[in-house]
Amino acid sequence: MPYINIKVTDENVTKEQKRELIHGATKLVVDVLGKDPRTTHVVIDEVNIDNWGVNSTMYSEIIKEK
Amino acid sequence: MPYINIKVTDENVTKEQKRELIHGATKLVVDVLGKDPRTTHVVIDEVNIDNWGVNSTMYSEIIKEK
Amino acid sequence: MPYINIKVTDENVTKEQKRELIHGATKLVVDVLGKDPRTTHVVIDEVNIDNWGVNSTMYSEIIKEK
Amino acid sequence: MPYINIKVTDENVTKEQKRELIHGATKLVVDVLGKDPRTTHVVIDEVNIDNWGVNSTMYSEIIKEK
Amino acid sequence: MPYINIKVTDENVTKEQKRELIHGATKLVVDVLGKDPRTTHVVIDEVNIDNWGVNSTMYSEIIKEK
Amino acid sequence: MPYINIKVTDENVTKEQKRELIHGATKLVVDVLGKDPRTTHVVIDEVNIDNWGVNSTMYSEIIKEK
Repeated sequence: MPYINIKVTDENVTKEQKRELIHGATKLVVDVLGKDPRTTHVVIDEVNIDNWGVNSTMYSEIIKEK
Repeated sequence: MPYINIKVTDENVTKEQKRELIHGATKLVVDVLGKDPRTTHVVIDEVNIDNWGVNSTMYSEIIKEK
Repeated sequence: MPYINIKVTDENVTKEQKRELIHGATKLVVDVLGKDPRTTHVVIDEVNIDNWGVNSTMYSEIIKEK
Repeated sequence: MPYINIKVTDENVTKEQKRELIHGATKLVVDVLGKDPRTTHVVIDEVNIDNWGVNSTMYSEIIKEK
Repeated sequence: MPYINIKVTDENVTKEQKRELIHGATKLVVDVLGKDPRTTHVVIDEVNIDNWGVNSTMYSEIIKEK
Repeated sequence: MPYINIKVTDENVTKEQKRELIHGATKLVVDVLGKDPRTTHVVIDEVNIDNWGVNSTMYSEIIKEK
């Protein structure tokens, strides 16, 4: 019964990419831990780029500088 | 001082249902654990149906098949 | 497919109380939202009383003053 | 490598305030624990005022009564 | 800068399995989303089998019945 | 009513350091957002060094190499 939460910045993650994240994360706990996929939940959170900071800097400013 | 987080798929949860979730979750920890309701917090997260997966399948596809 | 996380301070929560929390939280989302209990997960986190603060004060010190 | 999550009600938090939260939370773990800011992540969640309850009451109703 | 949290029941997950979970979850977001592994964090929570419930039943009782 | 969760690796964080984290995080949301400290909760999670990974590597192995 794993519960997997994937938090990423909200930058146009496509439906197909979400499908792959759900599939890949489920497969990971099934393969490594032998878990039952039927009780494995994956939740993806897309976080606004103003709401995530790393190295004391807002992510929206990090990507602007690139 | 409990903190209760309820994650559900975003499928038109009404304001009245949210009120009942907040009331019921608070009552639960007050009744079972004797907690003080004044420091009991309940946060409801409504998750997009493309962002939740179970059994390796996106929830939006699970409900389409029904 | 709700996922409910209940965080409380670690103060001798008994197995019977945990059973009631799991039962009550599941019943809440079944009754209010019509969710399927078979995909409803409840996770209880017991947090050390030195690791929770409210009103800028460590919980272990709040209960000592009482 | 701290990960800091700040959940607040969604009430017009400005970009400048988010900047200060990211900066202040990072500085806190750098100053107190000697952590490396480059691997310190801060995520701010803004929660709808209907989705947060305290003292068994929806936050949107608490602020209406004031 | 993804942050991935994997919650599983605490049932003797080995160090090698944890290594595989960290490696696999990182690879997933690198492969699917093109994220930088250097800012990808994976946190594994092992939850006591009395503290996880599904279908209104404590996990420690579910596995006893098997 | 902010809720702040600070996740750090479990490396002998002292009681005094926890006090400073609780105090500093509360002060941050009071100063920046004008929040009421009495409903501000801070929870510190100390994560086993085998259970946190960054850059695809277990933290316990990262610090061994230093």
